[in-house]
Order: sequence, then C-alpha cells, then structure tokens
Amino acid sequence: MTHDAIEVILAKRDAAELSDSQIDWVIDAYTRGIVADEQMSALAMAILLNGMSRHEIARWTSAMIASGERMSFAGLSRPTADKHSTGGVGDKITLPLAPLVAACGAAVPQLSGRGLGHTGGTLDKLESIAGWRASLSNEEMLAQLDSVGAVICAAGDGLAPADKKLYALRDVTGTVEAIPLIASSIMSKKIAEGTGSLVLDVKVGSGAFMKSLATARELARTMVDLGTDAGVRTVALLTDMDTPLGLTAGNALEVAESIDVLAGGGPADVVELTLALAREMLAAAGIDDVDPADRLADGSAMDVWRAMIAGQGGDADAPLPVAREQHVVPAPADGVLTRLDAMAVGLAAWRLGAGRERKEDSVQAGAGVVWHARPGDTVTAGQPLFTLHTDTPERFERALAALEGGYHLAPSGTPYTPPPLVRDRIA
Amino acid sequence: MTHDAIEVILAKRDAAELSDSQIDWVIDAYTRGIVADEQMSALAMAILLNGMSRHEIARWTSAMIASGERMSFAGLSRPTADKHSTGGVGDKITLPLAPLVAACGAAVPQLSGRGLGHTGGTLDKLESIAGWRASLSNEEMLAQLDSVGAVICAAGDGLAPADKKLYALRDVTGTVEAIPLIASSIMSKKIAEGTGSLVLDVKVGSGAFMKSLATARELARTMVDLGTDAGVRTVALLTDMDTPLGLTAGNALEVAESIDVLAGGGPADVVELTLALAREMLAAAGIDDVDPADRLADGSAMDVWRAMIAGQGGDADAPLPVAREQHVVPAPADGVLTRLDAMAVGLAAWRLGAGRERKEDSVQAGAGVVWHARPGDTVTAGQPLFTLHTDTPERFERALAALEGGYHLAPSGTPYTPPPLVRDRIA
Repeated sequence: MTHDAIEVILAKRDAAELSDSQIDWVIDAYTRGIVADEQMSALAMAILLNGMSRHEIARWTSAMIASGERMSFAGLSRPTADKHSTGGVGDKITLPLAPLVAACGAAVPQLSGRGLGHTGGTLDKLESIAGWRASLSNEEMLAQLDSVGAVICAAGDGLAPADKKLYALRDVTGTVEAIPLIASSIMSKKIAEGTGSLVLDVKVGSGAFMKSLATARELARTMVDLGTDAGVRTVALLTDMDTPLGLTAGNALEVAESIDVLAGGGPADVVELTLALAREMLAAAGIDDVDPADRLADGSAMDVWRAMIAGQGGDADAPLPVAREQHVVPAPADGVLTRLDAMAVGLAAWRLGAGRERKEDSVQAGAGVVWHARPGDTVTAGQPLFTLHTDTPERFERALAALEGGYHLAPSGTPYTPPPLVRDRIA
Repeated sequence: MTHDAIEVILAKRDAAELSDSQIDWVIDAYTRGIVADEQMSALAMAILLNGMSRHEIARWTSAMIASGERMSFAGLSRPTADKHSTGGVGDKITLPLAPLVAACGAAVPQLSGRGLGHTGGTLDKLESIAGWRASLSNEEMLAQLDSVGAVICAAGDGLAPADKKLYALRDVTGTVEAIPLIASSIMSKKIAEGTGSLVLDVKVGSGAFMKSLATARELARTMVDLGTDAGVRTVALLTDMDTPLGLTAGNALEVAESIDVLAGGGPADVVELTLALAREMLAAAGIDDVDPADRLADGSAMDVWRAMIAGQGGDADAPLPVAREQHVVPAPADGVLTRLDAMAVGLAAWRLGAGRERKEDSVQAGAGVVWHARPGDTVTAGQPLFTLHTDTPERFERALAALEGGYHLAPSGTPYTPPPLVRDRIA
C-alpha cells in the first residue's frame, strides 16, 4: 500500500495511531530519500509530543531493522550475551565487562559507538591503545567471537541504515529525547545484530539522558518489551548517574582504570557494577555455574582482555598515552565530599579534549579528569581534589568553569549514606 | 544576542514562551539559510502542538515583516482599505469588491496569490482575461491606486520573504493548520504592505481551512489583535463556507459571475457578501457618506473595474475563454436541494483543471463547475443540476466522483431555512 508523507505526519500530529503500513512506508521512503528530512523531522517532533503505542514502537523498530541487513550468531558454539548502556560519565564498564563475561563462557559482541557530547565513546577509549582498530568485517568479528569470546568494534553500515539517518537528523532538530525513538534506535540495532540475550544499563541522574527515575523506567520498560517481543531475552538495570563512575573520565585514563579492575583492583563502584551486569548477562545467556567474581580473581578475565586487544591489532603491553599538561585542583577546605556532579565532570572532560564537539573532530587520548575523592570521602584542605589532563592547556579555564559548583564539601564529620548504585531492575 | 536552532526548538518543544530575541534570531537565521529546513519544520510542529502566546505571535509577525521591505501608501490622496479572505470555494468576492470600494472613495490594494488545492486563486481568475498581467512594480501599483483607486496584483518578492519560505515549508510538512503561523503569515504581509485598514473574511465550514466556528473565531481574534497592535484598523467577518459562494467555481466562470454583480445582477449571496465587506471596509477607512449599493446600481463600480483591468493590460470587452467540453449532471429526482457541499464542489472544479496539483502546474481558464440550484431551491427530475467544464474530458470521471454524496435532495415541500451568510463579527 502506498502512502504520502503529509498523510503520515497529519495522523501523528492529530494523535492517531499510525498503521503498520504507514510505518513501513515512511521508514522505507525516508531511507530511500523519498520522504525529505524536513518531513521526517516534523514527524519526529509529533512523535515526541504525542507519543506512540507499544504496537507502533514495535512496528517502527521492525521497519528500521528491515531497512538493512541482519546478522546471525547461530553458528557460534557459545550462547551470545550483549549489553548496552544509554551512556554516562566515566562509564568504562564495557571494557572489563566484555572479557569477563567471555571468560565465564558466553560470546560477547559489543557493537559500539564514538562519543558526541559530554559522555565518552567506547571506541574512542580503546583507540588510545597502540595499534588497536575498531573496524572489523562481519567475518572477522564472528571469527574473534568464536576464538576469543569477546569483541568490541564499530557497528557496520549495513545494520539499520534508517536508524543511522534518523539519529543524525534527531541530533540537529531537538528530537533526541523521544522515548519511542530512543528505544527503537537502540533495539533495532541490537535485534538486527542477532544476539540471543541483552542486558540494558539504563542510566538515571544528572549526567544521563534520563534525569528522572520515572522516565528511565519508561524507557527501560519500552526496550525490554521490544526485546522480549523479538525473541531476545532482555533485562534492564537502572543505575545511578548523578555521580560519575570510578575515579576517571577520559579515554586512556578509563582504559587504565579498566585494567585495574581486570587485575583484581579498581574502584569499588566500577567493580560492583561490572559484576552486577555480568551476573545478569550470564543469567540471560543461561550460564548459571560460574561466579564472575572468581574469573576476575583468577586472572582469566585479564587473559581474555589481552587476547581481545591483540585480536584487533592492539598492543596490551604498550604504555598508554599521557596528556602533556596536568593541572591540580586542591580541596579548598577540610570536609566530607557529599556531592560530585556527573554532568559537571563530564563537561570538564569534554572541554579538556576527551570528547568532540562535531562529528568530524578527533579526540585527545590522554585528556580527561581524575577525581581523588568520591562522595563519602573525607578530604583535607590543600590535598588534590581533581587533576585535569590535556595536551592543550588553554582548555583548563573552561574545564575549571565546568567544575565550579559541581561538587559540595560538608563540614568534617557530616554523615553520608551513599545511594544504591543499582536503583531498579526491569525484566 | 545570538542563539542556536536547537535551543529555540527545545524551548517551544517543552512548551516555554520564546523570548523576543529567540524569535528575532530564528526568523532571521532561517531567512538567511543558517537555520535548516528540517530544524524549522520541527519548530513549526512544536508551535502547532504547543501554541504561542499573543506576545509571541506579535513578535513572530514583526520578525517576518523585518525580513523584507515595507511599503507605504502615505502619499496617496485617498484612505487605503484592504481585505483578505482565508479562502473558500467560489470565493470571487475580491473581483467585484475592489472596484466597488474604490468607486466609494477608498484606495484598494489587493496583493493576491495563486490557487493551490481546492480553492481558486484570485490571480488565476483574472488571468483568464485577455492581456491582463498580475505583475506590477511598486511604482506601477502606487500609480494605479492613485489614478484608478483599485489594483489586484501579485505580491512582490520583497514583502516578508521569511513568510514566503516558511509557507512553502509548512505546505509539505503537515504544519499548515497552526493558528499562530496562519495568522502571522497573513498579517505580516498586510502590515508590511502598509494599509491603513483591513477587513478579514474568515471562512468557516466544510470548504474552509477552519471547519469549526470556535477555531475560526480564534484565528480571527488573533489576526484582529495583530492588526490593531500594529496600528491597522482591523475587523473580521466570519462567513459561511459549508456552501460554495454564488453559482460557479472556476477561473473564467467566476470572472463572468463577478461582472454580473458589477452590472447590478448576480447571485444574491455574492451581492450580499460583497456589500457587507464593502461596508466594513468603508467604515474602517473612515468613509461614512456613501452606500456601496448605490455605486453598484449607478454603474460607477463597473467603470472602476474596466479601468482597473485596462490599467494592467487587460481587455475588459474580450470574450472570456470557454472550456472545450461540457458535461451536464441532471437532478436524479424531484426535490428540494438542502445541502451543497463546498468541499465537494471545490474538489470537482480542481479536478476539472481549474486548480493545480503542484506549484509549477498551469490552470485551465475555462474549467470549473456551474451549479444550477442553491440550497433551498426546488428542482425537477432531469433538469440540469451541475454543468462541468473542462478542456480535457478524461477528467470528468474523477470530478463526478468528487460530487457524489456532495449534495442532498429532500422530498419536495421540505421546508428549508438558509443559515446566515455572516456568522459573526470580531473587532
């Protein structure tokens, strides 16, 4: 059945439910350039403001999947377990998590992206390792999954091209924050990729897309339903992003912290979240006879990490890049750190050169922020509170401005109870 | 102050009131191509769904005026009186009205458009007169206003170019029916043109943009406020468009009917509405010593018509074009016509070739529909009910389909009370 763009826009504008045929047509026609950008952006705004039913979102997702190729992991000897994070500050969890879950017996395909805005990109982080390359063919990816068990690489152009086009359009038209569009964008790629199970890490808080628990729950519920309906065992954890994860934000800085975790150390919150997500992934993949904590302790996760990096040309033993300039911010007084704002830290790292302003920008491997205390820690006046890293010291001023008001020191002795890291679970 | 497109879109998306500075920036940046079409269409959809305050609409209108030149009629010896119709089927009122009001002592500048969709365009109608040309320079227009008192011509490119660009965008993005955008589009051109007074004919009914009296009232109130705030004496009549005006829809057909009115005859409803609008225009222009009915009766309105047509190269005595083919639809039974649907008649005339589907299409001068009865008239089985006119007889079938169900014959003797032609007045 054929339709036209205005008919579809008017239907959603007037808060009607789009038919399957309208959705299939508009996604296909947009991919082929028959529906123009200015028409799709008007439709996206109408979707953002008037919403979509569960059925519409499912059909929209299917239509985006149908715009490209589908992969299959059916030939692998291990069950696949995938994970997706909606993006946070200091969120390096994929780096220790993928080799850890592979060391427990699953195959972990992580098709990842680059960073835009205040949250870093997994590929940008790994590219600070000498020689490592993000682009693999589908055959290379499958071969590494089979031999090593884990792969982190760039998503190919073949998966959900409609999503690729729509994502770029939403970025410039104020239509990013539509739950139906966020959910279908993430899930179309995950379903097209062909994973058997999926764990979603939905971030909630100041440094996340979703600022409130209610909207984060709605997004998580929408995605879990989409995965389940498509035959993918899907579960979501809602995790805190008021505070940044670990003690570092920046590309090489986060790789180093991830290696600490794989070596059995690292910040407690990064270890806690890595294990929580690993347990969910293993359960979803049907592996119930192994405790991932043991695989961290016995070094087998580190072995997979080394094989995974080497498989993509990286030298796991090469020293990581270090920024040319550092600037230390001392604690202005004695006290207890009771707040460290994820958005402030993310903005500072971004402005230091860890992220990019435009898609075509490159990132600095060594740039970023190290914080020397986490909420609940007691500090002494004059001790280092932050160390800022960059190759371009003219950036310090704007990074310092971002951190201003981004933390709070209460009088020494003030009691502090940390909020739970995992705030909810949706299955 | 500088802004960016996403900031402005997000503000309206989240139902905030846009600041003066945001509005000025976005209109200017869109006119200059800095804000892209896909960004403006997302903003237009947000405006349609979230609305605008009276202050925002006024500022939006001012910004569109500021995007181009302003004209002035201050040098004319007569007061100016302008009229705008929101568009209806068989709405040829401008043709007899402009010369009639000029014959009463006002200067009547009518910057008009071409038709797109089921309502005809005033310029398309006049172009069925041999030699007549729509394009005048500002100097030619002012000279004719001074000498003849009336001019109907194409709006120059200099007036409100932002509106021109936005209007074309709204047409393809499902954002036409936003009252703030309709009102600012109409009023920016009228205020930029520099008229001293303005009468709005806001159509309401099946053949109009505004289907309900409530939305028509809201549009009229918005436009009257905009005009008044800009120092233009503005009044609106809300007039019926459930039934088409007169007995003809089509270009040359409507010119002929207009000449009948100027000659002292013509259909009663066309005469009634012409006189009602003429009286409002004269009152707004401060002319209170003349009854326009006298100027129809004494032939002076016809004299101005002939001078107005001749002033733009037209031959008022040349025979009007006639379509090559006619098809008569007889009344299927005896009865009283109790309904004649404006949209059905408009669609039929459009499909016969009186209107265009795309902007670049040309129209047929002779095409259109004549109806031989109006609601309330008694008809006899077999008498002509409609005559369809076209140069391309393959169009008859789709035109007949449009008329199907577009009228109702009640049993002979059924009482019928016509609804009032003027349904409300807003000043």
